[in-house]
Amino acid sequence: MLTFIGLGLFDEYDISLKGLEAVRESDLVYVEFYTSCLMGTNLDKMEKLYGKKLSLLSREDVEQQPDWLLEAKDKKVSFLTGGDTMVSTTHVDLRLRAEKLGIETRLIHGASISSAVSGLTGLQNYRFGKSASIPHPYESRRGTRVISETPYDIVKQNTEIGLHTLIFLDIDKEKGYMTVNTALELLLEVEEKRGEGLINGAPAVGIARAGSEKPVVKADYADKLKDFDFGKPLHILVIPGKLHFLEAEALVKLAGGPIGFMEEAD
Amino acid sequence: MLTFIGLGLFDEYDISLKGLEAVRESDLVYVEFYTSCLMGTNLDKMEKLYGKKLSLLSREDVEQQPDWLLEAKDKKVSFLTGGDTMVSTTHVDLRLRAEKLGIETRLIHGASISSAVSGLTGLQNYRFGKSASIPHPYESRRGTRVISETPYDIVKQNTEIGLHTLIFLDIDKEKGYMTVNTALELLLEVEEKRGEGLINGAPAVGIARAGSEKPVVKADYADKLKDFDFGKPLHILVIPGKLHFLEAEALVKLAGGPIGFMEEAD
Repeated sequence: MLTFIGLGLFDEYDISLKGLEAVRESDLVYVEFYTSCLMGTNLDKMEKLYGKKLSLLSREDVEQQPDWLLEAKDKKVSFLTGGDTMVSTTHVDLRLRAEKLGIETRLIHGASISSAVSGLTGLQNYRFGKSASIPHPYESRRGTRVISETPYDIVKQNTEIGLHTLIFLDIDKEKGYMTVNTALELLLEVEEKRGEGLINGAPAVGIARAGSEKPVVKADYADKLKDFDFGKPLHILVIPGKLHFLEAEALVKLAGGPIGFMEEAD
Repeated sequence: MLTFIGLGLFDEYDISLKGLEAVRESDLVYVEFYTSCLMGTNLDKMEKLYGKKLSLLSREDVEQQPDWLLEAKDKKVSFLTGGDTMVSTTHVDLRLRAEKLGIETRLIHGASISSAVSGLTGLQNYRFGKSASIPHPYESRRGTRVISETPYDIVKQNTEIGLHTLIFLDIDKEKGYMTVNTALELLLEVEEKRGEGLINGAPAVGIARAGSEKPVVKADYADKLKDFDFGKPLHILVIPGKLHFLEAEALVKLAGGPIGFMEEAD
């Protein structure tokens, strides 16, 4: 039996009672922190609370050589990830491999940043369109700095039909956790290059450390928000589409947004 | 202090350790089950596990006369809801009222059906567009049966740009919990009336009792899926847009979908 368990957003106390029980009943417990991670804890603290030895898996262990999967044929194995479980493509792939090996699988869900953002900002979850992610720029073989324009295109597509865009920011082992500030700079750089006027001067909302005791949620016009200090990671960004009045009110009163948001809202 | 706590998906064991601790430290604990509800438990079981008396709030208590809010001025009050917290408009409104009264608020997140559906079906969360909800048909003043066409329009808008649509099904005190079967019948009825060919013969996925030990996830062509027995509520429906190969494989191998899904995928 292989149990996929979502750990929730921030620390070792975000696991559900059901998840904790499954971990404690497991013969072997694996965890991967490269698709997502919990900033408010570490393996030691988790092991202490869960009362189990945890084995940290690398990307290779998960994607290339998941030999550990075989142990789930006759043992109780748990596989832990940040956020909700089975949200990454690579986890779906893992579940398919397990099923192919005749291993029974089940899921125990955890809180996800996608719905948390909606609660934290007051932006209604049914008014979000396709989500985007911003990768760190990279150098092409000719030495040019390349910025992906895909996230900008997704924001544009959503905004045109009035929808909000949730933007995941790169978690890169070497280049680090992308901040809201860098993300906005990259979007504005694409915007300037293309000569379009979508994001500059439009509302944006940054969220830092969702799930912690004091998450930061700050709304402002994008060009101003890019200078706000959100503090430690993880960060995530929302570019709202058309705001309903209650959404604008929430951004003003709960996220320190400028009063102009309410005047411009529906 | 007013703490909004998301209870997760199915029963009293879906609350996080953090949420349970907050409930146990509260002076007063309120719960509302009309925007969402936990099918695998009841107030008695919750009270027993949480070790606290729970007060059930009606829609009126939440939306019209939330006098109980005042108690949070000098007591520790928790407000519990199914799924993640603060996802409904009415909860945002409540938080704004609390802030207006000078009451400090905080959120403790729980698993949400939005991300659970992605994990359960293998459909990638970043490929979902705007979500929809299907209300029960109602009778107009002239006695005609009226079916909302909005959910059909949302599916159409998403499908045209290749995105999946998550469809929430009506939870109505009098008319009951809508099933996947009824939802598909209503969509197909709108489709026939309009003479369009979007949903009939296209893939659909129904999910029942997400978060329970044995959730049902079944994929098929919409006109066939409407005859499948999903068992007890809650149900939820996805109309996929364009399927990537891995998504199609997941629907075939994890949700009993027809092999044709894989042949038609990207």
